[in-house]
Amino acid sequence: MSKSVPLFKIPDHQVAGHQALNGQLGPLVDESGLFYKPLKDDRGLREADFYKTLLTDDRVPDHIRKFFPKSFGTQTLEASDKSGPLPHLVMENLMSKYANPSIIDFKIGSRTWYPEATDEYIDKCFKKDRETSSLYLGFRVSGMQIYENQDLGYWKPDRKLTITYTADDVKLVLRKFVSSNQASDFKKEPDCKFASTVYGGSSGILAQLQELKSWFEEQTIYHFYSSSVLIVFDKGSLLEGKKAAPTIKLVDFALVIEGNGILDHNFLGGLCSLIKFISDTNKDC
Amino acid sequence: MSKSVPLFKIPDHQVAGHQALNGQLGPLVDESGLFYKPLKDDRGLREADFYKTLLTDDRVPDHIRKFFPKSFGTQTLEASDKSGPLPHLVMENLMSKYANPSIIDFKIGSRTWYPEATDEYIDKCFKKDRETSSLYLGFRVSGMQIYENQDLGYWKPDRKLTITYTADDVKLVLRKFVSSNQASDFKKEPDCKFASTVYGGSSGILAQLQELKSWFEEQTIYHFYSSSVLIVFDKGSLLEGKKAAPTIKLVDFALVIEGNGILDHNFLGGLCSLIKFISDTNKDC
Repeated sequence: MSKSVPLFKIPDHQVAGHQALNGQLGPLVDESGLFYKPLKDDRGLREADFYKTLLTDDRVPDHIRKFFPKSFGTQTLEASDKSGPLPHLVMENLMSKYANPSIIDFKIGSRTWYPEATDEYIDKCFKKDRETSSLYLGFRVSGMQIYENQDLGYWKPDRKLTITYTADDVKLVLRKFVSSNQASDFKKEPDCKFASTVYGGSSGILAQLQELKSWFEEQTIYHFYSSSVLIVFDKGSLLEGKKAAPTIKLVDFALVIEGNGILDHNFLGGLCSLIKFISDTNKDC
Repeated sequence: MSKSVPLFKIPDHQVAGHQALNGQLGPLVDESGLFYKPLKDDRGLREADFYKTLLTDDRVPDHIRKFFPKSFGTQTLEASDKSGPLPHLVMENLMSKYANPSIIDFKIGSRTWYPEATDEYIDKCFKKDRETSSLYLGFRVSGMQIYENQDLGYWKPDRKLTITYTADDVKLVLRKFVSSNQASDFKKEPDCKFASTVYGGSSGILAQLQELKSWFEEQTIYHFYSSSVLIVFDKGSLLEGKKAAPTIKLVDFALVIEGNGILDHNFLGGLCSLIKFISDTNKDC
């Protein structure tokens, strides 16, 4: 009997980070619902370390674990850039349960660097935080896609634009995100048809963000620099009258450091700012 | 009948900011409970402007106004450095109702500069935020005094030390602040005798900080850079079995800018961090 070979492919719904396109190094997914992130540099190894620590860290309450992707250690497989076998971090593919997900990746914090980093690294991040929305809004839109319909597929604005969104841009995009009409058409006023379904309610995005916020008002064990909050729902299903499954996930942990008894005030401040934007959108819709 | 001349003197209980000692320019107080802050430079004028705006700003809810010092316009009087008549901002003397106040001045925010400032100003503040506790804790102790007793008077650690306090230093000082035994004696374990009276209860410091925090989770009209939260109570009265009158006040508004619809995530993050420190102290005491 021949051993079945898992079929790896490029993720369909990746909105931020390095992508395995055109023979470059990037993450892969398989048919079983797993996501493989290549561990090439120091950042990758630090992220793998964090996932390993998290698995056994009993200071993280059970009800908070749902906000982190499930992880399954590392596995060596052929890298997407054909450079040969490379260890990959194995995680759940957050998008595998969605037919046509709309996604926004918010990189949280007005500061994406940690105090102990090198001056060179701090200078680089500091410059980028000032040039993008991070310093002003306490977060930046690191990437996004909004499902339009079967014909048009996804609206995926250029990351160079999304990272510099102003407050008004963010408000508009948060309205487009939960609208049934065409997001890519800026002449159309978003109809906000799905706002209460996606943002509101006891299991909506806002309720989940509030639960996460409550943890950040208490936890002093980790500081999350340059991590993101993903918000996702299945717009495709919703358009067919099925469940939206609005979900938030924390992702990107290459720059998580020990909290040492101090609140992660940088992440918390940014998270509160994001909650305020979504809460206002939900009210105004 | 001769007109009575108000007697101006140097404030007894100023823990931060420029002081009118040794013929230098600084604030003055009078016998009627007023505090006069000299308006010499751009910073002073900006603070006077803020107080003027605040008086008529109906976006600030009534229950939040109690956290701001009352202000009464400007008045020209002889400057403390004998340089001649100078306009002064007239405010309530926050300390006039206390016999022997214990005070801590927390400058809030991991960042004391606003994005629109000059590069030179940003560089200067950025350096100081990194060298002091601000970047790490989300606030720094800008000054403090703890009343010991009639014989010893006040323990007033050097500001050069307080601004670089670590998390452990802050925890210790917050315990000393509400203890009946000698704060200046580091061999004595703080007895935390007054913790629940000062920090706890429906009108204690924590309840007031929570009320202020709720406003910062909503308000998008002002961003407070380099402003402080003062916490004060009358330890002298408490030692005599009288009321402590624990109070928080927002002070120092030379660098308040328009919020433009965005949360003050820098201030809010720092405020949450301070609340966590005080809340933990109150629990552990």
